[in-house]
Order: sequence, then C-alpha cells, then structure tokens
Amino acid sequence: MATVGILGGTGPAGRGVALRWASAGHDVVLGSRDAERASEVAASLRARGSGVISGATNEEAASCDVVVVATPWESAVATVSALRAQLADKTVISMVNALVREGRELVALYPPRGSMAAQIAFALPQSTVVGAFHHLPAALMQDLDSDLDADVVVFSDDAVARDAVAAMINEMPGLNAVVAGSMSLASAIEAFTSVCISINIRHKAHSYVKLAGMGH
Amino acid sequence: MATVGILGGTGPAGRGVALRWASAGHDVVLGSRDAERASEVAASLRARGSGVISGATNEEAASCDVVVVATPWESAVATVSALRAQLADKTVISMVNALVREGRELVALYPPRGSMAAQIAFALPQSTVVGAFHHLPAALMQDLDSDLDADVVVFSDDAVARDAVAAMINEMPGLNAVVAGSMSLASAIEAFTSVCISINIRHKAHSYVKLAGMGH
Repeated sequence: MATVGILGGTGPAGRGVALRWASAGHDVVLGSRDAERASEVAASLRARGSGVISGATNEEAASCDVVVVATPWESAVATVSALRAQLADKTVISMVNALVREGRELVALYPPRGSMAAQIAFALPQSTVVGAFHHLPAALMQDLDSDLDADVVVFSDDAVARDAVAAMINEMPGLNAVVAGSMSLASAIEAFTSVCISINIRHKAHSYVKLAGMGH
Repeated sequence: MATVGILGGTGPAGRGVALRWASAGHDVVLGSRDAERASEVAASLRARGSGVISGATNEEAASCDVVVVATPWESAVATVSALRAQLADKTVISMVNALVREGRELVALYPPRGSMAAQIAFALPQSTVVGAFHHLPAALMQDLDSDLDADVVVFSDDAVARDAVAAMINEMPGLNAVVAGSMSLASAIEAFTSVCISINIRHKAHSYVKLAGMGH
C-alpha cells in the first residue's frame, strides 16, 4: 500500500481524506506547520475510524509516496514551493479551491493560470499534479457513518497518474472516482465548489455531487 | 399558466425544455430564425409528449411571458440584443454555456463579464436574467421515458424571479430546482457544463448532476 502524506492535513478538507484513506489500509501522515497539533488531530482521527494516521511536519508528510495538498488556497503555492525537492517525481494531488466569501455566498476566484492545480503544477515542474476531492463536504467526509456516497471528479494531464489516483479513491469508503479529463477542466471543477458551498449555506445542507446518467 | 418562448428552440438544448414545460401545461413557442423549421420541430416534439408547442420566429417567441435563451453561445448576445424591446420587463432565462471543443474534451470559455448570463444581462438592461438548465443531457431531456431525475441549479441577482423560475422548474417532470444564489456564481455554474460533457464523451454517458446531502 502507498503511504499518503497530506500537507495542511489538520484542516477540515485534509482530515476527511486522511480518515478514509487510512480506513482503506493506507498509512497516512498528516502534515502541518505545527507537528504537535498534527499529532493531536491524528489521534482524534484514529479514534473515529481504523488504520494508521500519524501527525508530522509538512516536510515529513511530503516524503510519502503520494502527497495531497490540503492547505488553505492562500498558502498552497508557498507550501509546495518550499517542498519542491521532496515532491519531485511524485504524484501530488491538489484538492485546493480558491474561494472567497461574498455576503451569504462563497464565490470562486480564478488564479492567473486558471486554477489552483495549474498554479501548483507550475510551482512543481518535476511533479505530476492530479486534481481530486474538490466537491466533498468536510463534515460528512470526517464521519464514516454518514452514508456519504459521492462521486469524485479527477483530472490531470498525466493519464497514468490520473488512473492510479482514481483507483486509490475507489478504495475509500463512500467515494467513487470519475475521471473527467485534462487540466483544461481544472478551473471549472475547482470553481464548482463555490456552488456546492453556497448551496450548503443557503439550504443548511452538506451537498455533494452525484453524477447520474453514467449508464452503470 | 405562463406562456414560455424559447429563442433558438429548435436546438437540442431548447427542445428538452420545451417538451417538459409543455408536459407541465405551459404553452410553449419554439423560436427560430427559420419559423418553418421551428414548426416542424414543434410537431415532432408534440408527438413525443403532451401539451401545446408551436413553432415561430424568435421575435414571436420573445413575446411570451417567460423567455428562454437556448441559442448557441456565439449568437446569444446578438439574438437577445435584437429583441431588447420585446424582452423588457420580463424574466429571461439563460441556459447558455460558452464551450469549445479541445481534442476529446469540451472546455469552458470565460466571456469578458465572466459568464454568458452576465453578457445577456448586460445586453438586456430592462430584463431580469435568471440562469438555469445548464447541466442537463439533451438526449435524456427530450425523452420523457428516460427516468431523468436531475437537479437544476438556478441563479439570479433577483430573488423573486429566481424563486418563480425555480417553482416553474419544479412543475417539469424529472427536474428539481435548487437555488444556488446570485450572478456571482454564474461562471462556475456555466463552466461546470464542460465537465459534464467531457465526462459524457470519455465515458459514453449522459451524465447529469444530482446534489446529494441536501437533507431532505
């Protein structure tokens, strides 16, 4: 089994991914600027499920086989840039969305390269960037009893890495990977998170995307 | 019941909306640059369902109570601009997506004002623009026996018009309206259509969005 490191893994987005990949049998390292805090969060996640989850620095998390970027969007590029050497020749999964609050809504920002995945790919020229996990409600992701049954839209310019990540996602309870295609779709996939969250605010929901009509 | 006019109603997008609103009891006028062609398509749609669907010019369709813009995105602004007077003081529903083919994918373009709905709103300063029907597979929309059960994401800066359109959508068989919020979400909602269609091309599917986790 691959080891999975999660940069910014103590935040709500990273915690759910950690919990569900650990449940599937992968060793997960939660990375944080504050390793002590990461150890505390790892302990609380271990109590919610099964599997191996430990806390560490982001640098230690970056030494895992597969690395997920789950930091706030404002710090994602700085975080990965500082770890460029450790992340070289690896698959780096971006679940980052650039969003800002505007009244009762969360709205999407469009980074200069169109998406956060493209910003991260530019910062990591020796890594292979895959996008995934954008539309998932953190509260349901962190609760293995939540009956979550979500489709995870996956994209990358690297077809091999994309399929490998999709296969790993299909091991996670409650998640089904759907490969959408290339990085050309990144901005549309990331931005749609703003719609899910705005719907959640308006309707007091934990909405997520199911793709019906897939014919199987 | 409101009369519904559909600009560019002979295309695949408009036909499904026509069929399903006619089934719900609204009189529908399919508009086209070619009124004769519109009459032929209207006749073929009447044979697929029930209700009143007639073919006419876009100008005649624009005289209905509620008007849907279902033209190709390239001609949407020119079409509505020519009908500005007829569309004044009305709710105009944009289902337009700016998409271009790129290899095996359809990718989203971002119009200067961020979305086609915003472009149409700028062209129609005296109308109220609502966005809806972006993520629906045309083939399933045009087949009342297709078991379609889709969520329709609705947005507008006008809360009254938005809720009125949502109520009308909920009358349509197989569709459930979910109000997302304001025009700030338009680009994200429109662009996500590129993801649905790219998934359809890749997976030979007719995918559409269901929002799970809505709590009801």
